[in-house]
Amino acid sequence: MPRIESVDLFYLSMPEVLDIGDGSQDALLVRVRAGGSTGWGECEAAPLPSIASMVCPMSHSACKPVAASVIGQRIEDPIDIRRIGDLVRAESLDLLQADHTLSGIDMALWDLLGKMRSEPAYRLLGYERAYAKRPYASMLFGDTAEETYAKARTCTWTAAKFGWGPIGKGSPVEDAAHVRAAREGLGADRTLLIDIGTVWGHDVERAALAIPALEECGAMWLEEPFTSGALSAYKALSERAPKVRLAAGEGSHNLDMAKHLVDHAGIGFLQIDAGRIGGVSVAYDAAQYAKEHGVTYVNHTFTSHLALAASIAPYAGFAGETICEYPVEPKALALAITANHLTPGNDGMVRLPDAPGYGMRIDHNALRLYLVDAEIRVGGQLLYRTPELGE
Amino acid sequence: MPRIESVDLFYLSMPEVLDIGDGSQDALLVRVRAGGSTGWGECEAAPLPSIASMVCPMSHSACKPVAASVIGQRIEDPIDIRRIGDLVRAESLDLLQADHTLSGIDMALWDLLGKMRSEPAYRLLGYERAYAKRPYASMLFGDTAEETYAKARTCTWTAAKFGWGPIGKGSPVEDAAHVRAAREGLGADRTLLIDIGTVWGHDVERAALAIPALEECGAMWLEEPFTSGALSAYKALSERAPKVRLAAGEGSHNLDMAKHLVDHAGIGFLQIDAGRIGGVSVAYDAAQYAKEHGVTYVNHTFTSHLALAASIAPYAGFAGETICEYPVEPKALALAITANHLTPGNDGMVRLPDAPGYGMRIDHNALRLYLVDAEIRVGGQLLYRTPELGE
Repeated sequence: MPRIESVDLFYLSMPEVLDIGDGSQDALLVRVRAGGSTGWGECEAAPLPSIASMVCPMSHSACKPVAASVIGQRIEDPIDIRRIGDLVRAESLDLLQADHTLSGIDMALWDLLGKMRSEPAYRLLGYERAYAKRPYASMLFGDTAEETYAKARTCTWTAAKFGWGPIGKGSPVEDAAHVRAAREGLGADRTLLIDIGTVWGHDVERAALAIPALEECGAMWLEEPFTSGALSAYKALSERAPKVRLAAGEGSHNLDMAKHLVDHAGIGFLQIDAGRIGGVSVAYDAAQYAKEHGVTYVNHTFTSHLALAASIAPYAGFAGETICEYPVEPKALALAITANHLTPGNDGMVRLPDAPGYGMRIDHNALRLYLVDAEIRVGGQLLYRTPELGE
Repeated sequence: MPRIESVDLFYLSMPEVLDIGDGSQDALLVRVRAGGSTGWGECEAAPLPSIASMVCPMSHSACKPVAASVIGQRIEDPIDIRRIGDLVRAESLDLLQADHTLSGIDMALWDLLGKMRSEPAYRLLGYERAYAKRPYASMLFGDTAEETYAKARTCTWTAAKFGWGPIGKGSPVEDAAHVRAAREGLGADRTLLIDIGTVWGHDVERAALAIPALEECGAMWLEEPFTSGALSAYKALSERAPKVRLAAGEGSHNLDMAKHLVDHAGIGFLQIDAGRIGGVSVAYDAAQYAKEHGVTYVNHTFTSHLALAASIAPYAGFAGETICEYPVEPKALALAITANHLTPGNDGMVRLPDAPGYGMRIDHNALRLYLVDAEIRVGGQLLYRTPELGE
């Protein structure tokens, strides 16, 4: 009976991390080994606190390190992955960072089990087949409307999302200029999505001022005008601006939070990051819940193609829901993580590999370039040191 | 203009940490210095991940270490504390552990500002006076109903809560035996509260089986039958068991989560841990929201008397809401943190000191006994080493 032999965390970083809204500047990779197979996952999370939550000393019975609920566990069936996730949530109940750490581990476990069984992860999840997805290019706004226009002009994708940068931080007139610049640059036919990056907090009136330009430019969604938990603000805005559907969910770190958005926030799109919500298992559950309640599920991915493949798996079998987030401006590190990539086909669509696990090959030699040495000692004992990558 | 000069985190631990539901076995103390004054706070959180979230390298513009938004900030008015909290929430948006780390810092800032202005923290929060609170003894269930009975018999408090241990993990018959043992041990006149510690997850049917014994024994509340975010399960149970009011909220790590419980969960009591929700500032806001919506606010405190004093401050000015959680079985470490304690008066009531900040004196010499050496290095650079306690 195979058991989890090791869980190794690798902190990767660009040589310089800039103060911009680009989440691909560092990464926390997870390698899980059992029964001669190896699975890989990625936490979309701050690396050092996630490592600390893996190895920290126990505080009490419901505040244990994540490792305590993973190492040595049986792994031969999807139900084992579910059991391990439930165990982490119970035994690390009071360890806030645990959900982010679990996310990369759960992701690696589906990859591992897929390799053990020579099955794609989406099939282990219960989907007969994986439908092609239409990628939208996820990009940062330019610093000026002119720059945004220039970025949109050079964009070759059929759908594009602009977010972060200056949007929402200046006046409604400035925001409108950016939205119009994006639309003009893209032309009339392509899908335009706008991401505010939570900067309006809970301010419904401020958000409402942005709606006319969004409607005029035919934006398909308005993403995260408010912070993740601002359910009543989302609800109020959804009732005041029925033409622009709201998108939210990337901040969800458990299934309940995703459900609350579906139940109480009036959103049209639920965006889930499998690297934050507790992994592919929880993302799958969120996808089912969204579908049952008439909300469109979309992956949230801004990092590697490992994370991309893993984050599409939870809704791979949804024939009708085809849009997917696709990081088009990642840092070199994010591209280096895998030797192969989910390059769109001639029809512009992205397809998951029909290969064991996620079908992504980790590039050890490239990773070595970005590997960060880290070391944690408590009470004179070494709790963590960057593990060997191996061949 | 005083600015925050330093924020020091001290990891304290009992020599041995047991696998029991006792959160007083370790602690993370926060010391903040500005303008010649010193304030103290406590994170009710896993120490090592909280330290890591304070000092970790930046991942991107919305995933910065907590320290980046605190050190060097102006501090001379309550509005500065609010501003720092908002800054941490924005700049560390994607760092999950940040709310727990902020909690101890925010707590320390109210203590600091109180000392700078020679005012109690509750007055800075806007309360004219602090009303006496009736403490309930917070205790763990015995391993057997007989042990629970014996504990209840020796309890001298007018109100007692039993929680964790075996409750909810066996059969409804076993649970009922524990609840009856607690009631019989306490006698008919004292207030009995029951805490399930989230073990029923989302299972309304399982929870409903426990209601008859709770009604028979006149339990004032049923605490955390479900996980923090199980809003619809709470709501369903509240409608099926109107005589036993539900209590929840200790898992809230931001104001929105507390509001969701008030808005959507049908609870009668909102229990907030100022060491988790983002500090005394956010706890105060949650208290106001609960009051406006007819829900009774209660502190959640299982650790030191520093945390106890700080967690009462947010609702100190509520004349009608008098019950407060009081840790009666803390480990020696939790008692050692302060030289003075909030001992109940002859009338059994607990009163906040009429002294600057929280009015609690840190016992440096006692702390030294429990101080844990910790060290974090990233890329060859020392990011954290246990600071000097000083005199």
